[in-house]
This record gives sequence, C-alpha cells and structure tokens, in this order.
Amino acid sequence: MYTVIGSPNTRALRVYWALEELQLDYEFIPAEPHSTWAKATNLSGKVPSLRTSEGFNISDSVAILNYLSGKHGNEHSVFSFPMGTTERAEQDSITQFCCDDIDGPLSMYQKNSVFHPSSLKLPEIRSIANYEFSKGLAVLEKRISGKEFLLGDFFSVPDIICGHCAGWAISLGFSIPQSNEVSDYLKRVRRRKALKIAMEKTRAK
Amino acid sequence: MYTVIGSPNTRALRVYWALEELQLDYEFIPAEPHSTWAKATNLSGKVPSLRTSEGFNISDSVAILNYLSGKHGNEHSVFSFPMGTTERAEQDSITQFCCDDIDGPLSMYQKNSVFHPSSLKLPEIRSIANYEFSKGLAVLEKRISGKEFLLGDFFSVPDIICGHCAGWAISLGFSIPQSNEVSDYLKRVRRRKALKIAMEKTRAK
Repeated sequence: MYTVIGSPNTRALRVYWALEELQLDYEFIPAEPHSTWAKATNLSGKVPSLRTSEGFNISDSVAILNYLSGKHGNEHSVFSFPMGTTERAEQDSITQFCCDDIDGPLSMYQKNSVFHPSSLKLPEIRSIANYEFSKGLAVLEKRISGKEFLLGDFFSVPDIICGHCAGWAISLGFSIPQSNEVSDYLKRVRRRKALKIAMEKTRAK
Repeated sequence: MYTVIGSPNTRALRVYWALEELQLDYEFIPAEPHSTWAKATNLSGKVPSLRTSEGFNISDSVAILNYLSGKHGNEHSVFSFPMGTTERAEQDSITQFCCDDIDGPLSMYQKNSVFHPSSLKLPEIRSIANYEFSKGLAVLEKRISGKEFLLGDFFSVPDIICGHCAGWAISLGFSIPQSNEVSDYLKRVRRRKALKIAMEKTRAK
C-alpha cells in the first residue's frame, strides 16, 4: 500500500492519476506545500511525496511517476521504455520538455503570485508566463501531431504531466486554443477514467 | 561515435563533461540556441542534442545524461541506479530538484535577459532569481551535508547538473556563499579532470 502526501490541488494529482491507471491501492494525506507534512517529507517543502509500504520516501512528481511506471507499468497502463535505450531517451526528452515548457510557465506564475514574499511579487510576470506557455503549446502541437499520445500509441508519464497542466492552466486563467490538435489531445487525456476516479476519490477541484 | 550539437557555453557542456567521464569519443557542432542547427534537432530550438552513430537524435541535457549514464555508466564514471528501484527514484528526485531549484532560477533569468522579446523583459526578475537561487543552495546544503556526491559515494547525473550550474551562476554574477559544504562540494565536482578536458577540447568559457 502506497501513501501519497499532497493536496489533490497540487502536482500530487498526477500521482493519484497514475495510481488509478495502474490500479494500485493508496492512502493519502492532502498536505499543502510548505505545511509541516510537506517539510517533513521534502527538504524543499514541496508536495507530492510517495511513501512505499517499506517506509521509503520519494519526492517530486516526475520522480514518483517514473518510479511507478518503471515498477508497475505496461502498455495498457502507464508505459515506460527500458533505461539506456534510445526510445527511453526520447521519452525522457519529452518528459523534460513538458516540465520546462508546459509546467515551467505555470509554476513561475504560481510561485510569483502565491509563494514568494510580497516584496518580490511582480504582476508583470503574468505576461511572460502567458508568452512562454503559448510557445510551449505551439511546440506541443508539433509533438502531438498525428499521434494519440506523446509516445505514439502508449499512454505514459508525459501525458499525465500535460493532462494535469491543462487543468492547472485553466484554473489559473491561462488560455488554451480550442479546436486544434493540442486541445483535442488535452481533452483526450483528461477524459481518461483514471483521472475522473482520482479526482472523485481525493475531491480535487 | 556520438555527435553533440550545442555550444559549450550552454547546457551542452554537461554532455561534453559526461562523455569525458565515460571516456567516449565524440564530434561536436557548437551551435547556439535557436540557430538553424538547434531548430533542426529540437522543436523548441534548444541545445544540446546528441546524435548517435545510428542517426538517432536525443534532445535535452537531462535526457541525454540519463541515456549516457544508463547505457555506458558505472560506479567509476557516471553512476545510475536501475529503473523501478527506490534508489533510482531517489536519484531522479535529486535530479529534478537540481533542475527546478538550481537550474530553474538561472534559466528564468537568462531567458528574461537574453531570449525574450524586449517588450517582455523585466529587470526586476533578477531579484526573484537571486531569491530562488539562494533558497535552492540552502536546500542543496542540506542534501550534500556529510556526503561526497549527491548520491553519496558515486558521482552521477545530478552532480554534473549542479557543477555546470555553479559555473553558469558565476558567469551570470549570481552569488554562491563561500566556505560552507555547498561551496566545497561545487569546487570538488568542478575540479574533476573530465570537466577540465571537456572545457579545453570545446573551448568553453
């Protein structure tokens, strides 16, 4: 049995989603970032963390997703290529693209508007975040063109990251162009049953 | 024979460094970000990319480092734990910490001061980058305390990321506190012979 530490209104939702795709049991502690629970499980005070039944603690959503996919995944759930192969390198490259170019602008905006000291907050950073996010979506459109998922036929970690970011972006008021291959793709991944169940179980907004 | 696409004054230096640690032969094309070469090998126009002898192209420094370490590395060069293990999850967690909290602030500052359109540039972003970088170094100090490298005894991908970021930070004028465990660690990794050879071969500044 896994335990997830992290509010479902954070990147912890990615972990709940993956656990549902993999049909694994879990308990959860809906801790907010920088809470006592968060600080106890991640030196940076971030969530999510995953605790294994042996008591091992893993922090960072990407590390957790790659762990769960590498240990439990297959082509019918959350797929991963084996390490040291060029296919795995391509998978990792797409994952890092999602972190940098899709998650990155949202994260920069959220840190600036919520977590940073008031003296440092810059309302103008929203324009930069909008610009970077639009650029990220334009590259995502090229990457997803003609494919069902980012790796092709198999649903995988970067799809969870992008699917989560789409919901996060909407909640922050970022614009996602409608009626193109990106919006179709994002709707496709967000319609997955595992996400619906994860949101219902954890009451994610 | 590998071919690296990327100026040594970018994250491509991480790849040159890893190839020297692994004692692998390579050719290189010192392309700048958003150059014709960069756009031809990465849809985001970023460098580095790595081309294998079979003509496969891998972009993103973290994906490339994990590929090279997974394929060629061992405990005497650039170490990786096997996928699906908790040790590998911890390694990936540390790698993502380095990307988010050490590389992230430098990247935000550099994009704002170099790559973004003039109308979006915010000089005040420097204060945010300084704040985030200092926070990242404070967490790095806790992570490295009592250890030789971030994984303990074995030199690995996150050490290359941090070692590279230390040089990058200095070139951008960011402050790194001297005479503590972080500065000792950063000096230790930057003194490695493979980095020196990589810089000399590619004439990195």
